[in-house]
Amino acid sequence: MGNTIIRYILGQVLKIQAILMLLPCLVALIYREHVGVYYFATAAGCALFGMLMTLRKPTQAVFYLKEGCITTSLSWILLSVFGAIPLFLSGEIPSFIDALFESVSGLTTTGATILSDVEALSHCSLFWRSFSHWIGGMGVLVFMLAIIPLSGGSNMNLMRAESPGPSVGKLVPKIRYTARILYIIYFSMTLAAILMLALGGMPLFDAVNTALATAGTGGFSIKADSMAGYSAYIQWVVTVFMILFGINFNAYYLLLFRNFRKAFGMEEVRYYLLTILVSTGIIFANIVNTSSSAFRALTDAAFQVASIMTSTGFSTADFNLWPHTSQTLLVLIMFIGACAGSTGGGIKVSRIMILLKSLRKEITSYIHPKSIKKIRIEGKPVEHEVVRSVNVYIITYLIIFVVSVFLISIEERDLVTNFTAVAATINNTGPGLSMVGPVENFGFFCGFSKFVLMLDMLAGRLELFPLLILFYPAAWKNVWIRKKQPSP
Amino acid sequence: MGNTIIRYILGQVLKIQAILMLLPCLVALIYREHVGVYYFATAAGCALFGMLMTLRKPTQAVFYLKEGCITTSLSWILLSVFGAIPLFLSGEIPSFIDALFESVSGLTTTGATILSDVEALSHCSLFWRSFSHWIGGMGVLVFMLAIIPLSGGSNMNLMRAESPGPSVGKLVPKIRYTARILYIIYFSMTLAAILMLALGGMPLFDAVNTALATAGTGGFSIKADSMAGYSAYIQWVVTVFMILFGINFNAYYLLLFRNFRKAFGMEEVRYYLLTILVSTGIIFANIVNTSSSAFRALTDAAFQVASIMTSTGFSTADFNLWPHTSQTLLVLIMFIGACAGSTGGGIKVSRIMILLKSLRKEITSYIHPKSIKKIRIEGKPVEHEVVRSVNVYIITYLIIFVVSVFLISIEERDLVTNFTAVAATINNTGPGLSMVGPVENFGFFCGFSKFVLMLDMLAGRLELFPLLILFYPAAWKNVWIRKKQPSP
Repeated sequence: MGNTIIRYILGQVLKIQAILMLLPCLVALIYREHVGVYYFATAAGCALFGMLMTLRKPTQAVFYLKEGCITTSLSWILLSVFGAIPLFLSGEIPSFIDALFESVSGLTTTGATILSDVEALSHCSLFWRSFSHWIGGMGVLVFMLAIIPLSGGSNMNLMRAESPGPSVGKLVPKIRYTARILYIIYFSMTLAAILMLALGGMPLFDAVNTALATAGTGGFSIKADSMAGYSAYIQWVVTVFMILFGINFNAYYLLLFRNFRKAFGMEEVRYYLLTILVSTGIIFANIVNTSSSAFRALTDAAFQVASIMTSTGFSTADFNLWPHTSQTLLVLIMFIGACAGSTGGGIKVSRIMILLKSLRKEITSYIHPKSIKKIRIEGKPVEHEVVRSVNVYIITYLIIFVVSVFLISIEERDLVTNFTAVAATINNTGPGLSMVGPVENFGFFCGFSKFVLMLDMLAGRLELFPLLILFYPAAWKNVWIRKKQPSP
Repeated sequence: MGNTIIRYILGQVLKIQAILMLLPCLVALIYREHVGVYYFATAAGCALFGMLMTLRKPTQAVFYLKEGCITTSLSWILLSVFGAIPLFLSGEIPSFIDALFESVSGLTTTGATILSDVEALSHCSLFWRSFSHWIGGMGVLVFMLAIIPLSGGSNMNLMRAESPGPSVGKLVPKIRYTARILYIIYFSMTLAAILMLALGGMPLFDAVNTALATAGTGGFSIKADSMAGYSAYIQWVVTVFMILFGINFNAYYLLLFRNFRKAFGMEEVRYYLLTILVSTGIIFANIVNTSSSAFRALTDAAFQVASIMTSTGFSTADFNLWPHTSQTLLVLIMFIGACAGSTGGGIKVSRIMILLKSLRKEITSYIHPKSIKKIRIEGKPVEHEVVRSVNVYIITYLIIFVVSVFLISIEERDLVTNFTAVAATINNTGPGLSMVGPVENFGFFCGFSKFVLMLDMLAGRLELFPLLILFYPAAWKNVWIRKKQPSP
């Protein structure tokens, strides 16, 4: 089975891309920028390809996990390639691999840029970068599921492949409604962010871009100094919204249906907020002596912690110059990441929780060898299969991480650059340390390293396996060439 | 259960320590060094304490895993403390925490030193450092088991806590004979190393010290430039013996009993040798242009790879100055480490094998969701429990690693120093990069950081859990204060 339905879904994805790309065209119209032409041409191309690919309805109605993974990965690759075309054609990013890097970085909500002077870009392209964060934050396939009906298990297999976190919960029995509810929450919160930023005197264009990048926990900024030039009020608004978008969206769903006790009782959210609080405290204490004021130190500490922990990647200070304790802590929380089921990246708080709890269980088993206590989250026992899959996830993550660092190291940069470049991309954060610090960019890497980092961004966003199986030859069997069906 | 048997075993360990410390006294006699007095005094102290602690026979005959872990950890801590005393008393290491660091580093076969001028030490202390590697390599409790009879499961619980690798195999049904066979192999191979080194014209004292440190995969050298000053022949002999001592000792046991097919079929050993070969090839290609000759490059590549992979830590070149690709690869194989059941450290090749195989199995399960293939090693299926314990090991390892790096970072050194200092200690390797590179030393760290690194060395050598449960309050329940037995 396979090819016809994969082709059909990829076609639908391209059609959605065509519609989404009309928005930057609108921005170009408003600011009377000629680069809008390239966006319009690309949108037309997407529409054409999309229509050709969806001309024939698929012959199969359902597909399985493998096809789900392949479809998801290919969709993201396709979206990235088409997203890069206008950046390249307009000449704003003269190298195609750089344009692709920027596009992948946008869509995966990483926010790592190759641009040394972001302010030279047109409004239209700036908006497209921020908007790609917003698209990638919630996921394109989730969006598609919200509007296009697919039968049975197919939905779930697509959603599982695209959604962050150890297990995908359906909020309501029908996936389609789950997807819609998620998008409604996402949309409303983004609007709220725009409003709050505009209230602080931020120009509307800046507010829209900042809100989109915050919502997707992306981190592309329209200013060369990221958020450093804005007022403390705006910095705090962004801090709060970054934290909010890093929370598991189930919490908002529960709040929406007035299930306050359950919403506030979510263990993952509590640990997430606690980590932010403690890290902010430590970094505040570490930098307060070298800051201009205690308030400045607190603002910077809270902003950077929220930005790195939620994998957004905005910055108000060059933490590359901060003391090493703070730097180390930031790298550490970069790995932890946000809550599962949020738009944030990283390993996810819930996975770390399960790891810590299984460690405690292991130690207990040394002391009471006969105890058979299960790991519990929110009082409910965690299935053995979930624990196992978290273990496998971490190990796969480590292997990809180590291989990437080694591949990047061929380029002979220093270890901190290599290590944090991979950490910043696989966790979809954006800035790292040393040569990829918050005031630097990824432009200096060679094509091969950029390619490795792009794969890391995609692997991080798609939670490793969907991308990984693309490299596994056995996965391609029976995907394009259909097995002859035995005649009935 | 508990206190009396733990006390008894600790007493026996001290008695062994007393005997072992007579050897450096002998060295002092030969070289007419007065520092021998301090070794003799410490030996007498050990003997006294040991005898007091073993005066009363234990009231219990068996004990369980928890007691096994506690006994093992306490033994190693006790041995380290008493091993540090003569270094401190003699004034050769004026600070006690430094002496303790040196002693822990010796016993855990790490080889990280705090000395900036090792050649200033007396022969007696130099020998004690090397000899502590040899003692720690095979393990003191294994030695004790070889000579002191303990009943039933107690042996196994001690051996499990001290032996490296995912699972402890008994070579022969009786643990006592297994321990003896291991020591006979160990002793003979050490003799062979001394012989081969002496044949190359190395002075006997140098040969003995080098062989002892190689056998334990320790890495303390008696020269300031480690092995750089010796001839290429000697460097190659050391390379070969480092590799040999990093092989699972079961292989030698099989060879001894002429089971050649099984010995050469050991999958772990094959992957271990393959990794060494490939890494040497890559590093050779990376450094050949900057070396004085191709032979020099090959010697240095092979030596450094063997030294780091087996966690020995000798060096013939300052790889801190090598290209970054080579540095990164060395850090990578530092984590892999040697074979299980060898004297080497690191995560162990067999664990890495199990991880890679479970990753492959996971990807396959995405493609064929219904397949239930088990992971196999040497054709035999690996028990689910072994896979699980490897996963838990890696995760525990990571947590200890991350916490240690953070604690060390408080001292405000650079990230590469902190990262590789922890890597070099938890993997029992010795040298790291940057400030802890092969020509540097650990002396500059503050007391707190040294303490953290000591715990890392012990955790690495004892395979994490035995040390970890010391920090778990519940473990101490019923250990010292015996529960009142209900009267019959």
